[in-house]
Amino acid sequence: MATRWGICSAGKISHDFTVALKTLPPEDHQVVAVAARKLEDAQEFAKKHSISKAYGSYEELARDPDIDVVYIGVIHPYHLNTCLLFTNAKKNVLCEKPLAMNTKEVQQILASAKKNDVFLMEAVWTRFFPVSVEIRRLLAEGELGEVKMVRSEFGVPLMHVPRAVQKELGGGALLDIGIYCLQFISMVYNGEKPESIQASGVVHVETGVDETVVAILKYSKNRMAVITCSSGVQLPNDAIIMGTKGTVRIPAPMWCPTSLVVNDKETEYPVPEPYLPLNFINSTGMRYEAEEVRQCLLKGLKESTVMSHADSLLLVELEDEIRRQVGVVYSQDCQ
Amino acid sequence: MATRWGICSAGKISHDFTVALKTLPPEDHQVVAVAARKLEDAQEFAKKHSISKAYGSYEELARDPDIDVVYIGVIHPYHLNTCLLFTNAKKNVLCEKPLAMNTKEVQQILASAKKNDVFLMEAVWTRFFPVSVEIRRLLAEGELGEVKMVRSEFGVPLMHVPRAVQKELGGGALLDIGIYCLQFISMVYNGEKPESIQASGVVHVETGVDETVVAILKYSKNRMAVITCSSGVQLPNDAIIMGTKGTVRIPAPMWCPTSLVVNDKETEYPVPEPYLPLNFINSTGMRYEAEEVRQCLLKGLKESTVMSHADSLLLVELEDEIRRQVGVVYSQDCQ
Repeated sequence: MATRWGICSAGKISHDFTVALKTLPPEDHQVVAVAARKLEDAQEFAKKHSISKAYGSYEELARDPDIDVVYIGVIHPYHLNTCLLFTNAKKNVLCEKPLAMNTKEVQQILASAKKNDVFLMEAVWTRFFPVSVEIRRLLAEGELGEVKMVRSEFGVPLMHVPRAVQKELGGGALLDIGIYCLQFISMVYNGEKPESIQASGVVHVETGVDETVVAILKYSKNRMAVITCSSGVQLPNDAIIMGTKGTVRIPAPMWCPTSLVVNDKETEYPVPEPYLPLNFINSTGMRYEAEEVRQCLLKGLKESTVMSHADSLLLVELEDEIRRQVGVVYSQDCQ
Repeated sequence: MATRWGICSAGKISHDFTVALKTLPPEDHQVVAVAARKLEDAQEFAKKHSISKAYGSYEELARDPDIDVVYIGVIHPYHLNTCLLFTNAKKNVLCEKPLAMNTKEVQQILASAKKNDVFLMEAVWTRFFPVSVEIRRLLAEGELGEVKMVRSEFGVPLMHVPRAVQKELGGGALLDIGIYCLQFISMVYNGEKPESIQASGVVHVETGVDETVVAILKYSKNRMAVITCSSGVQLPNDAIIMGTKGTVRIPAPMWCPTSLVVNDKETEYPVPEPYLPLNFINSTGMRYEAEEVRQCLLKGLKESTVMSHADSLLLVELEDEIRRQVGVVYSQDCQ
């Protein structure tokens, strides 16, 4: 039986997610409905993607009995209320990253999912790419020896993009793209909480959000990590794991990787071609997280073991501490 | 007229420096004498390199009237006293990096050089490679736009090398190899003092010296840098400058670079072949710093403008602050 998806918001990322879903077998994944705040946006989206139902409000989607799981593609300041809308309507949820603006909000979302007994996952799509599966295998089997250092970076010039710089839209490099660096090192260090964090960054004078952030994380057993993210300048955007027996490099784009270099030997893991042009690079790779959601639902799970609720909590706790040190405060932090 | 060199210590680095000197025209550079603490070591060294005079003490070298400049290749805990011996003997000095253990020691050395009116330079050989000259040209001509981020790293497994781990020998990754990362970002940011430093590291439990250090440096005008050094694990060992108009990468080994990648276009700058096997990689590249010393002496300068006394002071001040944050204290710090 196919997993029946509802798409919440008709924006760019929802477009890409829908394209990604359709690279999977239709007997496994169906897009049943799309909702936008304006009906005509939903209708246009539905027409483009041959979706039978279009709603002019998220509430209508929440009431639709034919939906197994909702994909939430709204910007992150709206994640809290949107997640709660669907969890309270007993809908399973896959919500874009970051799951919310701060720890308090993430805790509310996770509590609501638990209370309503629904599946909920933060859409950290990177973790489900074949490259990431292979990295976890290499780590689990000790092929790199003891990991001593992890470095991860993501920087692209985004200062012209309102979403990336305006505080009320959740702007800021860390939550927008730095989260990919954090999730990577958290995956490598298996969800462990770092012993200490030292962060420094550049805060955009006019908007008060972080333009560039560097953070050093120190873990138990003398293991370290460093992340760099920037919406001000292009970085190489690779990631690297350095162990006593070997080195693994994930070439750019590290957040949606299609190749892996293990001790200088490169292997390719291409993503499928899209049936419509994409807004973002390698977006058909969202198919892997969608399939994870399906597998979890089939097993009756309420969270994924690969990107668990604890993983989301750890991520946002790291984000909060780094923002505190760099000096970025959102209105949500003051509520 | 040839610059007449005296070599102080007959160790591995002195061997390589002497080999490097002999890649330069003999009418420009001559090695006149070598001194070691044991006469037989000096004699063996002299024989191997066809040097006419061998001394069993540094004091004899200091008294030799035929020496224009002394190359000091002893380990860094001895730099202070050895530098003072030669500067007080009115000898010009090229001293291996780090110039000394801490700021107080560097200040003493610089004061002595000034008082005795001799030339003195810290042997930061990297700065004189053709690659570094080209980097400074690119920066000066604005070809990278505004530099926003500099990343530099140097890590090799050295925990089996006593010099690298024993505190009384000046062990510790930062002073041994991290200095190359620091000098690189200081060169890129033109000797400017950073506004802030955030450092974290792993201190070797048994020896109390730093095994791994990561430091974030924040400069004026929202410019940043990050260095990673480790004597515990192999790192990629490249360096990269990220500007608004372009990116420059210095492939490994970044501390003695022979190639430069400007916006993905690579240019090679090979160093000459040695006449004897070297102890360290690309050591004939020390010829460039030797020639800088000669040019300074010919002009009657007491310091190099490329690696000035202020540059050495800045370097050691950065080292001191990073060590303070990481928690590495040498006996010299307590005197």
